[in-house]
Amino acid sequence: MKSKFRQIALLGKYELPSAAGTKPATRQALERIAQFLHSQACDVVLEHNTAANAGFTGYTVMDMTEIGRHCDLGLVVGGDGTMLGYGRQLAKFDVPMIGINMGRLGFITDIPLDGFEQTLQLMLRGEYIEDRRAMMQAQVWRDGHCVFDTLALNDVVVNRGGTSGMLELRVAVDGHFVASQRADGLIIATPTGSTAYSLSAGGPLMHPSLPAWVVAPIAPHTLSHRPIVLSDFGEVTIDLVAGRDASANFDMQSLASLMLGDRITVRRSKLHARFLHPKGWSYFDTLRKKLHWNEGVS
Amino acid sequence: MKSKFRQIALLGKYELPSAAGTKPATRQALERIAQFLHSQACDVVLEHNTAANAGFTGYTVMDMTEIGRHCDLGLVVGGDGTMLGYGRQLAKFDVPMIGINMGRLGFITDIPLDGFEQTLQLMLRGEYIEDRRAMMQAQVWRDGHCVFDTLALNDVVVNRGGTSGMLELRVAVDGHFVASQRADGLIIATPTGSTAYSLSAGGPLMHPSLPAWVVAPIAPHTLSHRPIVLSDFGEVTIDLVAGRDASANFDMQSLASLMLGDRITVRRSKLHARFLHPKGWSYFDTLRKKLHWNEGVS
Amino acid sequence: MKSKFRQIALLGKYELPSAAGTKPATRQALERIAQFLHSQACDVVLEHNTAANAGFTGYTVMDMTEIGRHCDLGLVVGGDGTMLGYGRQLAKFDVPMIGINMGRLGFITDIPLDGFEQTLQLMLRGEYIEDRRAMMQAQVWRDGHCVFDTLALNDVVVNRGGTSGMLELRVAVDGHFVASQRADGLIIATPTGSTAYSLSAGGPLMHPSLPAWVVAPIAPHTLSHRPIVLSDFGEVTIDLVAGRDASANFDMQSLASLMLGDRITVRRSKLHARFLHPKGWSYFDTLRKKLHWNEGVS
Amino acid sequence: MKSKFRQIALLGKYELPSAAGTKPATRQALERIAQFLHSQACDVVLEHNTAANAGFTGYTVMDMTEIGRHCDLGLVVGGDGTMLGYGRQLAKFDVPMIGINMGRLGFITDIPLDGFEQTLQLMLRGEYIEDRRAMMQAQVWRDGHCVFDTLALNDVVVNRGGTSGMLELRVAVDGHFVASQRADGLIIATPTGSTAYSLSAGGPLMHPSLPAWVVAPIAPHTLSHRPIVLSDFGEVTIDLVAGRDASANFDMQSLASLMLGDRITVRRSKLHARFLHPKGWSYFDTLRKKLHWNEGVS
Repeated sequence: MKSKFRQIALLGKYELPSAAGTKPATRQALERIAQFLHSQACDVVLEHNTAANAGFTGYTVMDMTEIGRHCDLGLVVGGDGTMLGYGRQLAKFDVPMIGINMGRLGFITDIPLDGFEQTLQLMLRGEYIEDRRAMMQAQVWRDGHCVFDTLALNDVVVNRGGTSGMLELRVAVDGHFVASQRADGLIIATPTGSTAYSLSAGGPLMHPSLPAWVVAPIAPHTLSHRPIVLSDFGEVTIDLVAGRDASANFDMQSLASLMLGDRITVRRSKLHARFLHPKGWSYFDTLRKKLHWNEGVS
Repeated sequence: MKSKFRQIALLGKYELPSAAGTKPATRQALERIAQFLHSQACDVVLEHNTAANAGFTGYTVMDMTEIGRHCDLGLVVGGDGTMLGYGRQLAKFDVPMIGINMGRLGFITDIPLDGFEQTLQLMLRGEYIEDRRAMMQAQVWRDGHCVFDTLALNDVVVNRGGTSGMLELRVAVDGHFVASQRADGLIIATPTGSTAYSLSAGGPLMHPSLPAWVVAPIAPHTLSHRPIVLSDFGEVTIDLVAGRDASANFDMQSLASLMLGDRITVRRSKLHARFLHPKGWSYFDTLRKKLHWNEGVS
Repeated sequence: MKSKFRQIALLGKYELPSAAGTKPATRQALERIAQFLHSQACDVVLEHNTAANAGFTGYTVMDMTEIGRHCDLGLVVGGDGTMLGYGRQLAKFDVPMIGINMGRLGFITDIPLDGFEQTLQLMLRGEYIEDRRAMMQAQVWRDGHCVFDTLALNDVVVNRGGTSGMLELRVAVDGHFVASQRADGLIIATPTGSTAYSLSAGGPLMHPSLPAWVVAPIAPHTLSHRPIVLSDFGEVTIDLVAGRDASANFDMQSLASLMLGDRITVRRSKLHARFLHPKGWSYFDTLRKKLHWNEGVS
Repeated sequence: MKSKFRQIALLGKYELPSAAGTKPATRQALERIAQFLHSQACDVVLEHNTAANAGFTGYTVMDMTEIGRHCDLGLVVGGDGTMLGYGRQLAKFDVPMIGINMGRLGFITDIPLDGFEQTLQLMLRGEYIEDRRAMMQAQVWRDGHCVFDTLALNDVVVNRGGTSGMLELRVAVDGHFVASQRADGLIIATPTGSTAYSLSAGGPLMHPSLPAWVVAPIAPHTLSHRPIVLSDFGEVTIDLVAGRDASANFDMQSLASLMLGDRITVRRSKLHARFLHPKGWSYFDTLRKKLHWNEGVS
């Protein structure tokens, strides 16, 4: 039986071109996977940074835009952070993705490299569950102009500088005033991001199917402040009212310095990340393993 | 201009018939409101327990079923608990409700008795915001039989007896195993219930428009357990695996004793409670007042 | 070299006399330990319930009072609950204790049965760390009379009945009013108890050397209530102001039903439990293992 | 009856010399208090920055060292932050302090300016409660050298830069390894500091008489990490193991940039801050007011 996906891009651990080269383990993994895909009659494409880092030859090399346009599947080797990075880039091309981890289970990179062949073979034949993840379109506005515009899969975080006092942030939803927060900062997280920074700050877990965001304060001054879960159909705005050295982080990867009076707006993006999981996958199984909940009770 | 609502039921503070009579303050409030409604050319109906407690004469008296069938509006005088109690009863008749509080702002009883006339007059003319609240249909199953079946607007709570140790509860969603909880108990709350018991147990706030439930453990033994927000389209089941003297509470009003092996199922009801608020009402304004968030920052 | 401890009592898993007999595993463990102690030239004494459950013969049998008067060491086989139970009984005789667990590390039963001989041999020779744990003397007062009086090593817990609403509890320290709590209940925990129920309710960890108690509310209605750590030199009083079916639990083992107006007083006991640990023992090592903190960071 | 305190220093709102001058309200308050002290036959001394900001003449002016050597009492006009700033400076001279707030109750500045005369008169005659607050001596060590050394009354905070990822911090007490924390940072707070930043981060309240510190992680990655209360007789060390742009803050006022491998040590100082309160003062009364706990229950 043939693979549903003809042309498949291999996407390695997300590293800046300046990084000191892909580790041999990653390179070895990439080679194993490439050979396996070849054996399944798939065309293998290497993402160009991945190829440069790994020193591969013999495969077609493309940049992310070309991959988005031409490939049927992105196969990521790495952790959740790597998956999120490529996920943001492939979302606008609607290319599905599969994540292979190298030893440590991720929330979305859920196929272990050890014995990946059997799982992947079934998935290539169409035996998979598709898991669409909502994304946020976030913008920073200054004096009426948009000075920053980006996608986020996990979260938008506004926080104080390391050596500064509290921020004061004014939160509104669709123009309705929600709260003035005096805090170290504020997190707006998608369900995908609800297992990341938001969880450390006291936010709830949210099932990926939920059309919702959580707005969670970080170390709030007022003790009755609590994380609040909102429908993701509204537009959330955060105004920086007071505080020094504030910044806005998007998936902890891109960054904007903020000035007093700046406004961050967050809307639901029309785009989705498309993650494929093996048949039988359950979000809750991953959750239990990652959070060390015991299935039985000792 | 005429009232949109012709026949209006007056529903007093929720008290069992055996209670020692409505307090004079409540009776006085009911009379004031009845007279006002009369002045607006509305037909006033008294709920029969309310009438008995208040010792009213001169108005039509109906029970809740008759009110559900014949009245266009339920006007509740009391707190949120009273409103929830009548809300569950009127939901199946799709009768909208307005809540008047006697001095202490509620989350849903948001019109103060003082000066209610001006607000109510506008609302009777159609100047209102409708706020539909999702409800849960909850059942207790024993040996394959449903032994308890009820509606809940706030929450379903499973908890241990006061003198017993922890419970062990097994939670699943649509047949997918979520977690085994060793805890004092477990709360499944609607957005309406997210400001009640769930909040005290560490659950997040949830906007009423959110099609979601939160499952929050009470004093969980495993420290990595966290409240989890789920889509309300699935069926949640809770199995009592271990523990003595457990019970299930529904809106803290009806109650079922549980035996080992019992299963509680919770589904979204097709019914809604319909609460009407004055124009300009905002959920967030109420939230800030009730939780003592300062609008400005002192 | 001789054992510092001549006469040693063996204390088995804490079970009521009515229980269905000690499990074979426990009996086997007791026999192994008895033989080892014999080999170390110690006199072995069996606690009488332990003996009855295990069906032992050939060893002196004593009740707890005799053990307290005559033995130099109590050797407990079981978990932390068992250790606490015997600890309360031996405290007034100032008899030190060692805990051997049967497979699951406890906070205070920290010697695994597997290979216990080597560790125990050193401890019998005086190679140990003594860990004195403060205890609480707790009393229930009704109409001016003390109706209940007990020791607690872990905690005093006041809580509502499983089917009742919130309690209102008035807390004071040395006559100074602290707070009125509306909550499911209240925990006063020693440092020893800070890793038990109090931790699930959001209380902090407290080092055993700390002369302090924590007062932690359970699911408090007012969101700004927080656990408060107090010096254990003061007397804490809790008055039951409102609520039904309340009870007071002491180490989750003894129990008093409460009536409105009852007062619970908690003072530091003059007695201590004396737990012995192997040289090199560190409270923090146990904490990390029990709470699954990773030593390194993955 | 004469004042117990002959020479009294007036200490105004803590502002850097570069600040834009004391607000008229502060100046007016200082004048009122100076005149009142004069009427009580006390010698009034003005702290030199306070005098410069307020533009006072006619009173002796001293710097903090002279005040420490010559004055019997420091009278602070301002909030808790001001009180803490002067408290650190006067601690080594063992000079007691009284705090007068200008409208907003502080935890330690507890005498309202309105009607201060009556309260202060009694206190000057010896009618007061002395409240000694423990302090921390904190040092930063790099390559075996102490590069920073300071007192702190509230807390020592290590935190990440605003645009950096998590830190990894290794905590030990008296050489015993406690935990490796991956978090935004870590707070070590005195009982005085337990109502400040630590409380926002989830730390417990601690009574000022308690010889203890709390170590509280900020947004910890591992969900089972909890604040831990330690005896203040030990030395806590924090090693910066991983992370960029970390810094150490002391009472949020002095600051040290940290490099990988830096060690922060925290010991109990021999010095105390001595705060005087009116007779009848209770720590718990202040706590309830500041945290908006209701005395009665609405």
